[in-house]
Amino acid sequence: MSILIKNILVNNKRTDILIADNKITSVSHNITYNADKVIDGTYKAAFPGLVNGHTHAAMTFFRGYGDDLPLEEWLTTKIWPNERNLTDEIVYWGTKLACLEMIKTGTTAFNDMYFRFKEAARATDEMGIRGVFPQLMFDNLDPEQGKKVQSRIKYQDFEGDYSSRIQFAIAPHAIYTVSGSSYKWAMDFATEHGIIVHTHLAETQTEYQNAIKNFGLSPIRYLNSLGILKPNLVIAHCLWLDDDEIKMLADNGVKVVHNPNSNLKLASGHRFLYNEMKEKGVCIGLGTDGCSSSNNLDMIEAMKMMSLLQKGWRLDPTALPANDVIKVATKNGAEMLNINAGEIKEGMLADMFLVDLNTPAFTPLNNNTESNLVYAANGNNVDTVICDGKILMENKKIDGETEIIQKVNELVNILIKH
Amino acid sequence: MSILIKNILVNNKRTDILIADNKITSVSHNITYNADKVIDGTYKAAFPGLVNGHTHAAMTFFRGYGDDLPLEEWLTTKIWPNERNLTDEIVYWGTKLACLEMIKTGTTAFNDMYFRFKEAARATDEMGIRGVFPQLMFDNLDPEQGKKVQSRIKYQDFEGDYSSRIQFAIAPHAIYTVSGSSYKWAMDFATEHGIIVHTHLAETQTEYQNAIKNFGLSPIRYLNSLGILKPNLVIAHCLWLDDDEIKMLADNGVKVVHNPNSNLKLASGHRFLYNEMKEKGVCIGLGTDGCSSSNNLDMIEAMKMMSLLQKGWRLDPTALPANDVIKVATKNGAEMLNINAGEIKEGMLADMFLVDLNTPAFTPLNNNTESNLVYAANGNNVDTVICDGKILMENKKIDGETEIIQKVNELVNILIKH
Repeated sequence: MSILIKNILVNNKRTDILIADNKITSVSHNITYNADKVIDGTYKAAFPGLVNGHTHAAMTFFRGYGDDLPLEEWLTTKIWPNERNLTDEIVYWGTKLACLEMIKTGTTAFNDMYFRFKEAARATDEMGIRGVFPQLMFDNLDPEQGKKVQSRIKYQDFEGDYSSRIQFAIAPHAIYTVSGSSYKWAMDFATEHGIIVHTHLAETQTEYQNAIKNFGLSPIRYLNSLGILKPNLVIAHCLWLDDDEIKMLADNGVKVVHNPNSNLKLASGHRFLYNEMKEKGVCIGLGTDGCSSSNNLDMIEAMKMMSLLQKGWRLDPTALPANDVIKVATKNGAEMLNINAGEIKEGMLADMFLVDLNTPAFTPLNNNTESNLVYAANGNNVDTVICDGKILMENKKIDGETEIIQKVNELVNILIKH
Repeated sequence: MSILIKNILVNNKRTDILIADNKITSVSHNITYNADKVIDGTYKAAFPGLVNGHTHAAMTFFRGYGDDLPLEEWLTTKIWPNERNLTDEIVYWGTKLACLEMIKTGTTAFNDMYFRFKEAARATDEMGIRGVFPQLMFDNLDPEQGKKVQSRIKYQDFEGDYSSRIQFAIAPHAIYTVSGSSYKWAMDFATEHGIIVHTHLAETQTEYQNAIKNFGLSPIRYLNSLGILKPNLVIAHCLWLDDDEIKMLADNGVKVVHNPNSNLKLASGHRFLYNEMKEKGVCIGLGTDGCSSSNNLDMIEAMKMMSLLQKGWRLDPTALPANDVIKVATKNGAEMLNINAGEIKEGMLADMFLVDLNTPAFTPLNNNTESNLVYAANGNNVDTVICDGKILMENKKIDGETEIIQKVNELVNILIKH
C-alpha cells in the first residue's frame, strides 16, 4: 500500500509526502509516483500523530460519572466499587470507544494503564493505532500479597497474535497501593524483558505528605531509594517535587507525563514545572489521563491547556509556545514509548493527521498553522488520520463508529451500579 | 415560522419543544402541532444559546498573529499598528467570520467591542445572531481630546434598519486609554439612552499598579470615585481586586465578564474570584475575548477552561460544577445584555443549540449531558443552532461558509503588514 499526499502544508511549507508500507519514504516537492492512493493536500496541513502518554482507555465508560468530587472520595465511592463489575467485554468495547475518540482527534499511539490489558490490546490492534498495555499491579502495600501478584505475572501472557503496533509493559499502580518490593520486582521484570514501567507518582499533595509520613521520603526520593529511577520508567503527573528531585529524574533518564486537564479537574495541582524539568533535560510528554477524570481523550485540547496553564501560573505569556507543546505531544511521546515517529520525515513510521484548513480555526491562513492547531483548533478539526501507513479516517468517517457507541451504551448498565 | 422538536433531552429529561415566531411557546411532552418544520430529537440534547460576554469579533483577522508575547508589546507592536489599516470591508468580513464561528459553536448572542461598529452590526444582523455593538472611545487620557470624541458620538448613528437582535452600547476602552471625564460622559450618555457601558477593567497587575500610581486608587475604586459603578456597566476581566471592591461591584449591580483563555494566554492572571463574587451577588458572565488573544470564539471550550481553572487554583475539585458554568455562559450572559433568553422555557426567546448524542463526547449516555457538554465536548459538537426562532445551522451546515473564509483570506493581506 502506498499513499501520495500532494501539495500539503508541513511546518508551514508546501510539500508532497510519500508513504510506502508503514513508513514515510519521501517528503519533498513534486514527487511523481504511481501510488495506490492520492490525497489532495491543497486545503490541508499535516502534523505528526499525537501520542497520549498516560490514559486509562476503557474508562471511557466512566465519562461524566462522579464529577466534581475530591480524588479519594471519587476513587473509593465512584470508581473502585464499580470496577468490580468489569468484564472482558467491557474493557474491549471501552477501549474501542477510546480508540475511536483518539483516531477522530489525531492520536496514533497511547500509553494505557488498565485491567484486562489483553482485551485492551486486542481492541486497539483491531482499531489500527499503537498502544502500550501494561500488566497492572496492586498489592495493598503488603509484600506477601505482592509476591502472589508477582507469581501470577508471566511474560508469556504478553505474547500473542498482535501486530507490531502493540507493546506490553508493567504498571505498579502507585506508591500508596503497591509495596516497595513489588516496585523493585516490576523494574527487574521490565529490564529483563526490555519493556517500560508505567506508574502514577507525585500526583497530589496528600500523596506527598503520606509518603513523608510512611516512608520518611518524598515520592520521588522514595522511588530513588528503591533504585528504580531508570530510563524505562514513565511516571504520570509529577506535580509535587523540588529541584533536587528534578535532577534525580534528569540524571536517571526518567520520563514524565503531564496531564493538565486531569490535574485541574481533580484539583491535584496546576504548577507543573515544565521549564525547570526541560532545562535539566527531563523528557516530558503529554497525556489526557482517563475519561473519568479528564473527561475526553482530545490531545489537541490537552496541548492548549498545557500551554495556557504554563503561561497563566507563571504570569509569563512567552512560556511554552505552540511549536514546543506540539513536540511534547508528538516527538517526546514517541521517544518515551520507543516508537520511531513524532516527525513527518523520511524514514519515520507513517503516523500523522491532517486538518482541513477551510475552517474558522485555520482562517486566516497566516503561516502559523501550529498556533492555529494549538490555540484555535480542537480534536474535531482532524480530518484524516494515517497510522502505520494505513488510512484510519478520511473526511472524518471511521468504519464501525455507530456499533461502538451502541455497544457502550448497552454495556454501561452492567458496569455502573453504585 | 414554527418549529417542533420532538423527544429531545433538556436538563436530562425527554420533552418536546415548540417554537412559534421567535419564542419558545411550549416545553412539554407529546406536543401535537402542525409545525412548518419538525426536528427529531431522539439522538440530540438541547441547551440554551451561549452568550459571549466579551469579544472583539472582527479580530478573527488577527488569529494566530503575534502569539506568545507580553500584553503591552503585543498591543503596541502587533495589534495597534495594523489596526490603522482597518476598513469597513475588513470589519464586515471579520465579523462575518466571527459569527460563522460562533454559530458553529452554539453562541447566539455576543457583546462586541471594536471599531466601525455599524459594519459589525450589519454583518451580525445578516448572519442571524444577536449582538451588542458599542461606539468605542479612546482619548489618550486627555479630557480635551475626550470632548472632541464625545462631540462626534450621536445617538442617531445607532439608528438604522436593524432587526431587534441588534443593540447598541458605548465602550470607553480602558482606564489607561480613556480619561475619567470621558468615562463619566459615557455613563451619562448610556443612562440617557438606556444602553450598556462596556469596558476593560482590572485585567493586569500592571494596570492595577499604574492606577495606584496615576489616580491614587485601584481600578475599581477609581471607577467608583467617578460615580459610574452602575447596573448597566459591564466590565471585562476583573482579575485584580480585593474583597471591598467585590462588595462595591455587588452593591452597585455591576456585571463582570470572565475571559479565562485570554487571561491565561496573555498571562494576565488566573485567580478569578468567582466564588467570592458570586457569594456577594455579582452577576458573572463568560467571554472568549477576541481571537487575537484567545484564539477562538468557542464558548464550550471557555466553559471547560473556567470550571477547571477554578478547581485548579483553589485545589478544590468541587468548585464551579458543570451546571453552574452553563448558567454563567447562558442565563447570566443574557441577563447582562438584557436579552430574554438563557433558558429553554415557555415564553423565552427561541435561542438554543442542539448537540448530536451519537458521538464519543456524549457516550455513554448517562443522564449527565451537562457534564459531557462542559468537560468532554467542544464547540464542534454543536449540530443545530436556532436563534430568534430561525434555524441558522442544521447538521453543521451554514450557508455562505466558503465565501466568508475566502474573503477573509483575501483581505488579510491588506490588514496585516507589520
